[in-house]
Amino acid sequence: MTVLVVGSVALDTIEAPAGRREMILGGAANYFSLAAAHFTPVQLVAVVGDDFPDAHLAALEGRGISTAGLQRAPGKTFHWAGRYGDNCNERETLATDLNVFASFKPVLPEAYRETRHVFLANIHPQLQLDVLDQVRAPGFVAADTMNFWISGELPLLRRVLQRIDALFINEGEARQLAGEHNLVAAARAIAAMGPQTVVVKLGAFGAMLWVRGELRLVPAFPLASVVDPTGAGDSFGGGFAGTIAAVDRLDAATLHRAAAVGAVLGAFCCEGFGVERLLALTRSEIEQRLSQLRELVAF
Amino acid sequence: MTVLVVGSVALDTIEAPAGRREMILGGAANYFSLAAAHFTPVQLVAVVGDDFPDAHLAALEGRGISTAGLQRAPGKTFHWAGRYGDNCNERETLATDLNVFASFKPVLPEAYRETRHVFLANIHPQLQLDVLDQVRAPGFVAADTMNFWISGELPLLRRVLQRIDALFINEGEARQLAGEHNLVAAARAIAAMGPQTVVVKLGAFGAMLWVRGELRLVPAFPLASVVDPTGAGDSFGGGFAGTIAAVDRLDAATLHRAAAVGAVLGAFCCEGFGVERLLALTRSEIEQRLSQLRELVAF
Repeated sequence: MTVLVVGSVALDTIEAPAGRREMILGGAANYFSLAAAHFTPVQLVAVVGDDFPDAHLAALEGRGISTAGLQRAPGKTFHWAGRYGDNCNERETLATDLNVFASFKPVLPEAYRETRHVFLANIHPQLQLDVLDQVRAPGFVAADTMNFWISGELPLLRRVLQRIDALFINEGEARQLAGEHNLVAAARAIAAMGPQTVVVKLGAFGAMLWVRGELRLVPAFPLASVVDPTGAGDSFGGGFAGTIAAVDRLDAATLHRAAAVGAVLGAFCCEGFGVERLLALTRSEIEQRLSQLRELVAF
Repeated sequence: MTVLVVGSVALDTIEAPAGRREMILGGAANYFSLAAAHFTPVQLVAVVGDDFPDAHLAALEGRGISTAGLQRAPGKTFHWAGRYGDNCNERETLATDLNVFASFKPVLPEAYRETRHVFLANIHPQLQLDVLDQVRAPGFVAADTMNFWISGELPLLRRVLQRIDALFINEGEARQLAGEHNLVAAARAIAAMGPQTVVVKLGAFGAMLWVRGELRLVPAFPLASVVDPTGAGDSFGGGFAGTIAAVDRLDAATLHRAAAVGAVLGAFCCEGFGVERLLALTRSEIEQRLSQLRELVAF
């Protein structure tokens, strides 16, 4: 089944020990889409400016990503610039020019409104709610969020939590949202706010899943070197939601396997600048790495 | 087969959110012994003062731990005092009174010199070398170390590395020793210094194993609450080395399973103050948790 994603599409400028890239295709919804498209058709709802290159559009459409929901607004595309330290483990944001993204109002084309699998990437919780109001019969809704909304828009975020099936959240944000340091206790507390599934992203240590009262773990695929970690978390989300939409089941084993697929896509993402590795990736490479990940923890 | 351990036996004073305990049985070799003794007989080489309670001695001997190598010296036993913060994730050392441990010279009783499985807990690398000189035909030697020896005694530590089969090291120390941030690359670099097996301890995230050129992962057993994390790493070592001595095989699968047993023992250790949980533990509880850990990562 198709998966619908709402979030940012950006042009990124990235400096890392491996090099520098200017105005490359970026944004959470973009990474998500290119990861999910390995498994299922994707509908992309986002906004770009009149400077957005046609080649990027073609790259997305060439991978089965519908861009009927990609608005074009007068002005510049969202631009993010960042610099990674020696080991790619520290990131400094050099610029966040929201441009047309500042006034983004997600509008689902009529055909998208029937879609049952929805991923709300990290945008204002009010926009996440607006999207859900436009979906006629949501079957599985996952959302991402961040510290900025947890501290600034908690009442709205709590309304989002009551309407979603799965929350993606990183370690520090999980602790912040739950008011609880222990991650098992934090995941449990967040699940009590609404989502049956809580995916706590642990970066280089993988992810912890709370699935209907059960705990599951997914290791990260260990990389001996990282080129550019931008978008790894969104690629994780894309691998996860794309897999679930493709198999259209919601049992704990499926959710667990989907998270492992997400971990693998996140690792691939780190192996190239921007989306270059996601674009070059084949399904058999994904399956092979998934088998390797399974072997790595088979004791 | 028997496993021999050399290291500290201490009396600890611990403050944690769950309470306070004074002068309880502590020390790396003690945690190691009580964890390993669930799998195989243990020979303990350490030193205590004339204040060391007979009850502690009886507790060790009652678990199949030989104390023929436990020296009694005039003076006080090594005393460590520490305080854990709200979430047991930060530790403040309040006192480190080495006492009789300051002049510890490990001497192996004649019967111990035939032992093939040896664990060198975190002591001065010169003492680790002195112990190895007393072992007639070492079969499998594992060692722990710390930042203090890496920065202060590197030439000696490098000699230790050339004589051991497995190094236990935490994340930060692995980076420091290898001069390499990426943990996969760091483990590989440390293996090139001597030990075929490198166990990088990742605390609440488990451990990464480098075993003869192959990578393996062991998740930590997730705990919803931690009473006292003191000794968790040494209990990990005890579960690991005890398992290897018991089965007396050194293939990658055995080392991997041994590390999973170590992770389980480390988790149990955190569930009580000092060694109380290790003392109460049954073999069937260990096997049950090992199965649970396997399930947690079976995607």
